[in-house]
Amino acid sequence: MVTQGGQAAQTDRHDSGVGVGLIGFGTIGTGVAKVLRQNADVIEQRLGFPLRLVRIADLDLETDRGVDLDGIQFDNDADALIADPGVSIVVELIGGYEVAKRMMLRAIEAGKPVVTANKALLAMHGKEIFDAATRRGVDVAFEASVGGGIPILRSLREGLAANRIESLYGIMNGTTNYVLTEMERTGEDFDVVVKRAQDLGYAEADPTFDLDGIDAAHKLTLLAAMAFGAELTFKEIPTEGIKGLLPVDFEAAEEFGYRIKLLGIAKSHPPEHPGDEERIEARVHPTMIPRASLLANVDGAMNAVAVTGDAVGPTLYYGAGAGEMPTASAVVGDLIEIARDLRRGTAGRVAPLSYQPSELGPKPLLPMGELRGRVYLRFTVVDRPGVLAQITGVLGEHEIGIASVIQKGRAGPIASVPVLMQSHPAPELALRTALAEIDRLADVTAPTRVIRIEEGL
Amino acid sequence: MVTQGGQAAQTDRHDSGVGVGLIGFGTIGTGVAKVLRQNADVIEQRLGFPLRLVRIADLDLETDRGVDLDGIQFDNDADALIADPGVSIVVELIGGYEVAKRMMLRAIEAGKPVVTANKALLAMHGKEIFDAATRRGVDVAFEASVGGGIPILRSLREGLAANRIESLYGIMNGTTNYVLTEMERTGEDFDVVVKRAQDLGYAEADPTFDLDGIDAAHKLTLLAAMAFGAELTFKEIPTEGIKGLLPVDFEAAEEFGYRIKLLGIAKSHPPEHPGDEERIEARVHPTMIPRASLLANVDGAMNAVAVTGDAVGPTLYYGAGAGEMPTASAVVGDLIEIARDLRRGTAGRVAPLSYQPSELGPKPLLPMGELRGRVYLRFTVVDRPGVLAQITGVLGEHEIGIASVIQKGRAGPIASVPVLMQSHPAPELALRTALAEIDRLADVTAPTRVIRIEEGL
Repeated sequence: MVTQGGQAAQTDRHDSGVGVGLIGFGTIGTGVAKVLRQNADVIEQRLGFPLRLVRIADLDLETDRGVDLDGIQFDNDADALIADPGVSIVVELIGGYEVAKRMMLRAIEAGKPVVTANKALLAMHGKEIFDAATRRGVDVAFEASVGGGIPILRSLREGLAANRIESLYGIMNGTTNYVLTEMERTGEDFDVVVKRAQDLGYAEADPTFDLDGIDAAHKLTLLAAMAFGAELTFKEIPTEGIKGLLPVDFEAAEEFGYRIKLLGIAKSHPPEHPGDEERIEARVHPTMIPRASLLANVDGAMNAVAVTGDAVGPTLYYGAGAGEMPTASAVVGDLIEIARDLRRGTAGRVAPLSYQPSELGPKPLLPMGELRGRVYLRFTVVDRPGVLAQITGVLGEHEIGIASVIQKGRAGPIASVPVLMQSHPAPELALRTALAEIDRLADVTAPTRVIRIEEGL
Repeated sequence: MVTQGGQAAQTDRHDSGVGVGLIGFGTIGTGVAKVLRQNADVIEQRLGFPLRLVRIADLDLETDRGVDLDGIQFDNDADALIADPGVSIVVELIGGYEVAKRMMLRAIEAGKPVVTANKALLAMHGKEIFDAATRRGVDVAFEASVGGGIPILRSLREGLAANRIESLYGIMNGTTNYVLTEMERTGEDFDVVVKRAQDLGYAEADPTFDLDGIDAAHKLTLLAAMAFGAELTFKEIPTEGIKGLLPVDFEAAEEFGYRIKLLGIAKSHPPEHPGDEERIEARVHPTMIPRASLLANVDGAMNAVAVTGDAVGPTLYYGAGAGEMPTASAVVGDLIEIARDLRRGTAGRVAPLSYQPSELGPKPLLPMGELRGRVYLRFTVVDRPGVLAQITGVLGEHEIGIASVIQKGRAGPIASVPVLMQSHPAPELALRTALAEIDRLADVTAPTRVIRIEEGL
């Protein structure tokens, strides 16, 4: 049954519905199966027909996932699942690059739309996948890949479609946000908090990917492409993680009126003169933001993305950024949308990256060196008269103004103490030159840590 | 050109696009014209074809709105606009009930989809309009009617479509939120702040509709219908505005760890026993909420809606709730969505109230008397020994526990002083009975003010 335009679909109890095949029956896959089972009634009441999980493929056929599999074919044959005529939409939830990509391309070749949560794959190989989908005329949906259950991609691509997007700021990694929130709350060291995050399941056994900001950079790649019509350019995004942050940084942030968050930041720099190109600013790093801002109050493993459009002004979207059920909420939301279009015999209604594929192009990144902003600086120095004068002297030579300083006396027989400053707005290049000079001073005993400050939130 | 399913639309520079007709050229209408003009390029790059404002109807043909009307027919003939074959989508922005309704029904009869921001009309007469649209097979879109530019309806209806919605809490009226924020910030009286809000354009000359919570109740009606598949039942929602709040209430809120917001609240109460019906809790009133919650930090004229779904957990959507350009962002977002579907020759893709029209039904409201919760109480009493004992005595008889009390001494020769309390959780009926009794005491000189406390935010 294809419902034609002009006909509102009515629920038909004899309708066999749209069949879903699930490749990957891990945490998220289990959540998807649970949502499709538990909420089958409300989903059907919204869609007008059932959305049915008909087949699952996974290598692990033994583990009990606690889901009723009655009526669902479950084996380890992903190829057969893709070819199964009862499967109209394929969900890819195995993660990783090569196998996942092969599965997705195979489903697309078979003319079947694909739903995925695989941001790493899309950030690295998205162009190949989206191009294949465009050629074949099938949809690829990936709401779950950024911000877990938050409908941020849909909001950016559809809700704000009338806008020129000016900027976006996202807390897009729950592990790092949990670690930062706990370091601030407890005053404990990074390693202690990471260990606890692992024990509690908020961090993986090898949390490098999260802590180094790579996961956030993958997500920012997708958001920036959508926001600005830019081709996906993951490898170019300057990325700095949260390792090396100290309890003293959180104390200073509080005194200066900030909180520290790992932000993905992307902004459009429109051409200043005719003939110039629009340039995109994109970066991931720990950032001090005003305590009163909404983003500063996003705690624990939660995520939020703040988007400013020229018409709508500032907006913000908040929710769980990961986890079995929140991520499943986004996957099933995508399934519902695709099922609607399948029923109408249509596809490609909304371009996956918001702009029509023909309009996507490489947009040059603004080099970090051209940034200008305020920074927090943690100098590590020998506690001796005259050191502060040396540092401020170098900063002054490079015309970097100091807004405030915290200098704490030595608490015991330790050789070095931190000196904490926040600067006035300064050009990045001048800052780098000054810090290179300062770090060569004899009384400076460790590299200076920089945390950028963003005020406009 | 109708793009068929499976074909991604490509931009065609010779495509004349989809024509839009605008009825009502006031503040929001002007914003819509500006957005369609200024962002024509990015809208076309997203859609694959142009979205063109071809005709405007308004009674005032004189005022210069500062919009370039080149190529746009502008007259006072709304009927001709609806009949114009160049107009494929009609935007209704005249507000009010009768004329707006007639225009919308006429456009629907002409087979043309309608976009509106008219929450009052939809909350009161939505069923008639949606029924007509369903019969005729055209879309009615109204994202701008709740939360201004925030894509909250789209998020609730599509992004969270996989969920059973459990609750929603919204700051949905910018005027009242501005007044509450300013009363807290300045310690000034209600009347002073309302006057300033009027001078600054945050409140209308007659702000009753906003201050009494009616506007918020209209919006809650739409959200609750969408969230729970309930028929629109505006008149039944218990609604209390912000009049009568005193500076001392804000001081007490701060001491107790809360902020005061006018919230629209809707929750689902699933059946407890087989055969029972689901019941809906819906109400609008000033509410004390924990200071650390995101909603408590939504200040000034901004809006936010917190939605909890069974899979996604808590989410929140924030942005400007009113104003020329934010509201226009939502209207044009709806136009873009409808234009996509018109090009594909389809309509009714998503049910306007989220559930299929055949699934919408009357759902009983939970009577306020069955609520149970914590409250803040402001007693006004003669400052005389024994009064507090009398009050706590009555509360105790009705098993209403007191969590904390603030009693301020008389500052001068005034006859009455406030006694401020927060209660432990208590049944609404017991509370009402106790307060009726207390308000009859000789030493109680004014009716007791109740502000409900919501903790779970």
